[in-house]
Amino acid sequence: MREGEIIERLLRPIATHPAARGLADDAAVWSPPIGRELVLTHDVIAEGVHYLRADDPSDIAWKLVAVNLSDLAAKGAEPAGVLIGLGLARPDDAWLERFASGLARVLAEYDTALFGGDTTTGAASAVLGCTAVGHVPRGKSLSRTGARPGDDVYVTGTIGDAGLGLAIARGEAPADPALLRRYRLPVPRLAMGQGLADAGAHAAMDVSDGLLIDASRMAKASGVRIEVALADVPLSDAAAARLAPGDAGRLAAATSGDDYELLIAAPPQSRAALFTLSETVRLGLTHVGRVVAGEGFSVIGEDGGPVTVPRLGYEHGA
Amino acid sequence: MREGEIIERLLRPIATHPAARGLADDAAVWSPPIGRELVLTHDVIAEGVHYLRADDPSDIAWKLVAVNLSDLAAKGAEPAGVLIGLGLARPDDAWLERFASGLARVLAEYDTALFGGDTTTGAASAVLGCTAVGHVPRGKSLSRTGARPGDDVYVTGTIGDAGLGLAIARGEAPADPALLRRYRLPVPRLAMGQGLADAGAHAAMDVSDGLLIDASRMAKASGVRIEVALADVPLSDAAAARLAPGDAGRLAAATSGDDYELLIAAPPQSRAALFTLSETVRLGLTHVGRVVAGEGFSVIGEDGGPVTVPRLGYEHGA
Repeated sequence: MREGEIIERLLRPIATHPAARGLADDAAVWSPPIGRELVLTHDVIAEGVHYLRADDPSDIAWKLVAVNLSDLAAKGAEPAGVLIGLGLARPDDAWLERFASGLARVLAEYDTALFGGDTTTGAASAVLGCTAVGHVPRGKSLSRTGARPGDDVYVTGTIGDAGLGLAIARGEAPADPALLRRYRLPVPRLAMGQGLADAGAHAAMDVSDGLLIDASRMAKASGVRIEVALADVPLSDAAAARLAPGDAGRLAAATSGDDYELLIAAPPQSRAALFTLSETVRLGLTHVGRVVAGEGFSVIGEDGGPVTVPRLGYEHGA
Repeated sequence: MREGEIIERLLRPIATHPAARGLADDAAVWSPPIGRELVLTHDVIAEGVHYLRADDPSDIAWKLVAVNLSDLAAKGAEPAGVLIGLGLARPDDAWLERFASGLARVLAEYDTALFGGDTTTGAASAVLGCTAVGHVPRGKSLSRTGARPGDDVYVTGTIGDAGLGLAIARGEAPADPALLRRYRLPVPRLAMGQGLADAGAHAAMDVSDGLLIDASRMAKASGVRIEVALADVPLSDAAAARLAPGDAGRLAAATSGDDYELLIAAPPQSRAALFTLSETVRLGLTHVGRVVAGEGFSVIGEDGGPVTVPRLGYEHGA
């Protein structure tokens, strides 16, 4: 399929929002809702780095969009649209059709428009980019810099499932569809994120490279120290059944990536509002640590003493 | 240089706009000016397709941003910021430093912020993406769909210089710094684009793949027929000196790409306002054709008869 055909046959049917101008113009033209700030993020995923050539293209499309929506969720934003950049090698039609179907699915799931993008072929291997555009009430966006001494630290959902899913995808662990799905089809925590500012949270970010490394980044960005209690890291039943008992298993979970849960710092008086929000949006919330004055980061083991962590998580980009 | 270092050392110093949050958060947060619509565009350029590995990385960065700003210009928009996606192979530090310096230069030249982006290494060859975000007074954005029978068709600047510059870059033609520059460092026609709506223009787009193919696209998008008079296609002195005389040379110019001039359709009563705008922004404007009822596209030769054109221009994306 030529580039023009890819746009005409596969992408135009998805780009139904008027802002996209049927992908027939040079650019999208969109009126943002009044009284809102824009939230803009761009992530790149590369074949052989973030996904494997043999992966289902539908899942790749889902992940490309979902990881960007996860960044919007972390800022409390509601998604509006995406622009997709496809730098492809020599894709066959079946690959392209599967990719487009995954793109349509994830955009429909999160009520997000395809605003535009660009497609090129002839790259040595595929590199895919996504810009997500969202909006948040003016002054209500969260940042990772707002954690303050005395805050509690929470995480949504469960941690480590996607890391186990990756091992399954690599053929290094026995199959489990639910764990594999956590790796392949991450769920951006949009409803939770959109409620955090009103619940009084001070800071939020998404957990993409591992709970510990991302918590250490929040500590650094906020100019505070964060302590995470390993025993409190929430595990799914499926993960608990596979991981070593005690600190070792929870450390493995907290240093694996791709969770796309939200890490939240909030003052003690926000506790009730946060758990009410958690119930409303039906997403688990777990207290995993606290913010103290100082700098750096520490991990507390089951015995209450510090745990030395050789590697906090993945570092594959921003 | 690791990915974190690329961001910290090379990109953060450029990202001085508060919306970028020092590239330290998950996303940019930006308040668009009140009463404006957003214009959003995303282009991808790939090593070996749109540029050569040996090209100066500073020029690559310029071109990556400038071609996106050219799309904003075509919609009449003022640029606000960009998000840059770098899918890199194994770049050395010198390449990265040159790239960052070109990025800083083009953003400063057009008063455009670095809002954010993402960097990854390990791709088989580089694929670079840019999302440009601009704004236009509400209801004043131009489109390529607005050309109407009776309109005149104009083009800015000169046509074909970049095509000759590409031949020079490939070592297929003798050196000429000015022509090479037209290929390597395109100039988005922002001031002109921003004046077109008030001058009464009906349609605009940028000429990226060749004057003829892009004019045929405007005709198709507008549901009209466009006739281009080859003898009126504006050539620079440098291009005229190199091209064959008469129709053949102008056909070569009008079917080569990368001009990044603006193609404009406007009613006869806009003529004076357009030429006043052209003088004000110091950019040449030339009447090159007309819009008639019907469909399709035709090229008129020096003798007033139709010219058969085997290939209208490049087709390498949207």
